[in-house]
Amino acid sequence: MTPKDKLLFTPGPLTTSETVKQAMLHDYGSRDFTFINAVKEIRSKLLGFAGVRKEEGYDTVIMQGSGTFGVEAVMQTAIPKNGHLLIIINGAYGERIAKMVSILNIENSSLVYAEDEFPKLEEIENTLKINTAITHVAVVHCETTSGIFNPIFEIGQLVKAHNKIYIVDAMSSFGAVPVNVKDCGIDYLVSSSNKCIEGVPGFSFAIVNTQHLNTCKGNSRSLSLDLFEQWKGLETNGQFRFTPPVHSLMAFYKAMQELEEEGSVEGRSLRYQSNFKLLMDGMVQMGFKPYLAKEKQGYIINTFYSPTHSHYHFETFYQKLNERGYVIYPGKLTKADCFRIGNIGRIYAEDIEGLLQAIEAVKNEMGF
Amino acid sequence: MTPKDKLLFTPGPLTTSETVKQAMLHDYGSRDFTFINAVKEIRSKLLGFAGVRKEEGYDTVIMQGSGTFGVEAVMQTAIPKNGHLLIIINGAYGERIAKMVSILNIENSSLVYAEDEFPKLEEIENTLKINTAITHVAVVHCETTSGIFNPIFEIGQLVKAHNKIYIVDAMSSFGAVPVNVKDCGIDYLVSSSNKCIEGVPGFSFAIVNTQHLNTCKGNSRSLSLDLFEQWKGLETNGQFRFTPPVHSLMAFYKAMQELEEEGSVEGRSLRYQSNFKLLMDGMVQMGFKPYLAKEKQGYIINTFYSPTHSHYHFETFYQKLNERGYVIYPGKLTKADCFRIGNIGRIYAEDIEGLLQAIEAVKNEMGF
Repeated sequence: MTPKDKLLFTPGPLTTSETVKQAMLHDYGSRDFTFINAVKEIRSKLLGFAGVRKEEGYDTVIMQGSGTFGVEAVMQTAIPKNGHLLIIINGAYGERIAKMVSILNIENSSLVYAEDEFPKLEEIENTLKINTAITHVAVVHCETTSGIFNPIFEIGQLVKAHNKIYIVDAMSSFGAVPVNVKDCGIDYLVSSSNKCIEGVPGFSFAIVNTQHLNTCKGNSRSLSLDLFEQWKGLETNGQFRFTPPVHSLMAFYKAMQELEEEGSVEGRSLRYQSNFKLLMDGMVQMGFKPYLAKEKQGYIINTFYSPTHSHYHFETFYQKLNERGYVIYPGKLTKADCFRIGNIGRIYAEDIEGLLQAIEAVKNEMGF
Repeated sequence: MTPKDKLLFTPGPLTTSETVKQAMLHDYGSRDFTFINAVKEIRSKLLGFAGVRKEEGYDTVIMQGSGTFGVEAVMQTAIPKNGHLLIIINGAYGERIAKMVSILNIENSSLVYAEDEFPKLEEIENTLKINTAITHVAVVHCETTSGIFNPIFEIGQLVKAHNKIYIVDAMSSFGAVPVNVKDCGIDYLVSSSNKCIEGVPGFSFAIVNTQHLNTCKGNSRSLSLDLFEQWKGLETNGQFRFTPPVHSLMAFYKAMQELEEEGSVEGRSLRYQSNFKLLMDGMVQMGFKPYLAKEKQGYIINTFYSPTHSHYHFETFYQKLNERGYVIYPGKLTKADCFRIGNIGRIYAEDIEGLLQAIEAVKNEMGF
């Protein structure tokens, strides 16, 4: 039909399967049975991917917009006017939460770590002991800035030991990194449609502790981003309060089925880990230097230092890879000059090999 | 391939063309040239549909989420902390604005009219004279609750005579009802992707008076819904601050081209008017009674009184039409029992005729 799309080695939007995209070739009304049923199944299956069931006191709330809209909906709904959020930060997405809650006039404190460092558990524990104003704690799971996997289980144990509400931004990890929301003590986990479940962009979703969300009526500082009312709307008649992104949702429904066919979260995790290993080995062999120490590096996205050779320019490197059909991603670190390559999306070993060959060719062409 | 989709006679999501949906069969990265260029053209062409140019001091800002997200972004960005909004209300969407700004803690007053009445211009003028606290005025163009077209030009003249900022929710009319934003004195006009331009849901957009928006830095009570920062982001490098709904945007880009092929806003207006006339004549002939007086009825969506016959039940009527492939819409009026039928979307004379035949058949079958 048309030339093959470029492969996206980015943190999203990602390369999705043809069948996921084809699920968007239909128009459904927002009251259509097929659509309403898909939404119901999406909400239920997402709980399964999070290792919990509705009967255990969890539910899924879908929110229109990008992932950030979902995070902001959680913050402004879950945190009451007299709440105080502790944010554990080691990258741009943690910083974004701090900025967001400041705009929302939510009292907050931060524990800020270097972008290549794990948060320090003893400092978190100490802060929870000392600062008794804290009511909620937020952390990013896979900090997409660097690709580091933060210890959300260990942090969760501390948060729960101090009886605080625990919010995890699992945007770029959910669906590919096994997480049991209950075991981790997570009250709100946020992710979006165009990450590891391999749907297209259009909405975010939160896995919520319903016992807590039930206490949040009237908290939201916004009509659109009110997670409580959105939940009640979906629970009442299965419909959204405001026009849902029908086509994105139908694509996501298909994507979930394909995730299950791949062996659910565990199966996808294996493919991404194998993508990661192949890419990392190949890049190191070509002389690229990973930003993170091995034990901190997750398998979602990799950050590499920019070569210091005078012939290297990111935009040329990016453009030449682009012309060969491979899309990489710029760096987002505050202190180091880097670029990023994602391992997620409808990407297989042969695609990673193709990318590595293209990088080798461009490297030689540019002469660095 | 698959059975033909049901035809949607609703206020959106609508029936879209096959080619618009096929535009979603590609994955683009959010920095991709093709995508960035599409966004640029979308923003520019939308100004054209609004009868203005960038050089005249207008611009388009796209916002992720549904139409309500766009309205809320405008409200919380355009109205400063010490602002006061006058809302002219004659339906559920005007009421929604009142609810929204109350949640946002924005001072407001309302002029409320019956759902089948035009707002009274002399009362608006009087209110603007008396209540000098008012800084902004908001009204819905086509109030989708009933289908009434509110006199946005005439209201605009009053608003501008009193030097207030004028916000128009043109959700269900923009692209099919010719409007010159400048002549109407509109500072912010909001609409969404899945209405008369015949795209799929996923985002809203605002046509903005840039001179005013330039004064709005820091106004927004939210990170995600900050129209000023969203605009600055798009202006800096053509990219969105947060993941854009790439597929919806590519579908919309295609939909705009198809709007142009149909003779732009004027051409589409003619098709919808002809749909409207055909539908209204057919319905009246079958004995259905329109809710609005003739001079108030717009050509976007029609409201009919529910038949009082004991054999009529909306859900059965709806379901039986649905089984025949025609999707209508429930009523949303506070005081009258009604149902609604839309004239918008990829709907032609033969589709309206098919719907009328189906209604006739169902009517006979149900015996009312």
